[in-house]
Amino acid sequence: MVASADDLGFTRGDGCFDATRVVTGRDGVSTIDNLDAHLARLNRSVVGLGDEPTDLAVWQELVAEAVDAWSQPGEATLKLMYSRGPESNPGRPLLVLTITEMSEAALAQRQGVRVAGLDLGRASDAFTDRPWLLGGVKSLSYAVNMAAKREAARRGADDVLFLSSDGFCLEGPTAALVVAFGRELVTTPVEGTGILDSITQKQVFATAEKKGWTTSYRLLRPAQLADADGVWLVSSVRGAAPVLELDGVALPQDAKLSAKVMTWAGF
Amino acid sequence: MVASADDLGFTRGDGCFDATRVVTGRDGVSTIDNLDAHLARLNRSVVGLGDEPTDLAVWQELVAEAVDAWSQPGEATLKLMYSRGPESNPGRPLLVLTITEMSEAALAQRQGVRVAGLDLGRASDAFTDRPWLLGGVKSLSYAVNMAAKREAARRGADDVLFLSSDGFCLEGPTAALVVAFGRELVTTPVEGTGILDSITQKQVFATAEKKGWTTSYRLLRPAQLADADGVWLVSSVRGAAPVLELDGVALPQDAKLSAKVMTWAGF
Repeated sequence: MVASADDLGFTRGDGCFDATRVVTGRDGVSTIDNLDAHLARLNRSVVGLGDEPTDLAVWQELVAEAVDAWSQPGEATLKLMYSRGPESNPGRPLLVLTITEMSEAALAQRQGVRVAGLDLGRASDAFTDRPWLLGGVKSLSYAVNMAAKREAARRGADDVLFLSSDGFCLEGPTAALVVAFGRELVTTPVEGTGILDSITQKQVFATAEKKGWTTSYRLLRPAQLADADGVWLVSSVRGAAPVLELDGVALPQDAKLSAKVMTWAGF
Repeated sequence: MVASADDLGFTRGDGCFDATRVVTGRDGVSTIDNLDAHLARLNRSVVGLGDEPTDLAVWQELVAEAVDAWSQPGEATLKLMYSRGPESNPGRPLLVLTITEMSEAALAQRQGVRVAGLDLGRASDAFTDRPWLLGGVKSLSYAVNMAAKREAARRGADDVLFLSSDGFCLEGPTAALVVAFGRELVTTPVEGTGILDSITQKQVFATAEKKGWTTSYRLLRPAQLADADGVWLVSSVRGAAPVLELDGVALPQDAKLSAKVMTWAGF
């Protein structure tokens, strides 16, 4: 990648991204999961950063070209990145696209993840009327998300469940939370919490609703997860990964239900 | 700049930086403000990100070479950036150094800034025992700082004073807060607040103490600024910029005192 040394995506994390899965068959033909939804969310992030929405036709062309050139059978991650561009030359955003083979860690974690609960130090309504906190913006400023993952590793966990300072479950650093109680699926509301609006969670909910399940957006406390029938971290790359443990305490597991939710996630 | 397209500094803001002022005389000879203090802080940021400290001799050599090549009389900004490097090739950090002419906006703002108070949504002790929040780390994840500056501009202000959710003054997006009450200078404590340990504020305090002033680290409420004898946002690039207004309300000004504090900042 050639970028200006004063590229604001690099120097300030002042940009955003989105990511989804590419599945390539033995014939080299690829399908992209929910591309339109990811492009739409990318533009919501761009607008959240105060920029004009990007021309999605440009992205679609870039993606088509990159995916055409990608023929390795299996799963890969497509990442679309938008930077505000050079500080010295405003209004010239930098678009970057990568396709990379899906990591073995991501594939292994579909079987389940042990998570550490980490407090983000903000109340569950902290993002209300504070657009400068960039709630719901998938920004390039993910240093805290990465530091949280390292903290989880230090604690012997694979991933993180972010908590609010008033004691509610929020999301993972790169995944949404979905919890089953009987035939009800619950996730964290977007409003006020600043969490990312998850495309995979939406897909799971839409399918569950068709199957006659109830779906709800409400705040849950970590202790409530012990009474659930299943807890998942869902994302475009990993699908619905069952949460095996929270802070070293085993959570209820239902392999059949987990397989079902994975299918609902499109995996 | 040539970087890997999966450079973690770009893709995740997973890196850090530091910046200081370079002053170049008509003879082309440059001096760098507090280089050792900035390099030491850069390494504290690197360690805060969970990496090994960098070899400061490497930086010193890079800086010497760059500053030797820089001969434009006047003031410039030296920026040192550290990225964790390519995700696909761990343990190979990317070091980037830039020198750029100081912006006219920065020079003009030395005369004074109108600031908007923006709540960061975290209590003043939110960073206590939560290293994953990266308190005191000057990370490349500055998207919120930049969004806050844009929000200030929308409100007709030049800069931001970040506030805690429990109603205390913290710092600016790229500057520390210094307030005078009589012959006492006050700034925000670092512990618990997550603010950056400011080199310029330290320099101001050290000189003030030599002159017999009292210096204190304590939390102030925005309303207390109206009773001050002077309020400044201090940084390595802008020196001590008097805060003219907070949310449209004029703050006390003392031109003589502001000139003195600017001198104490080394400007």
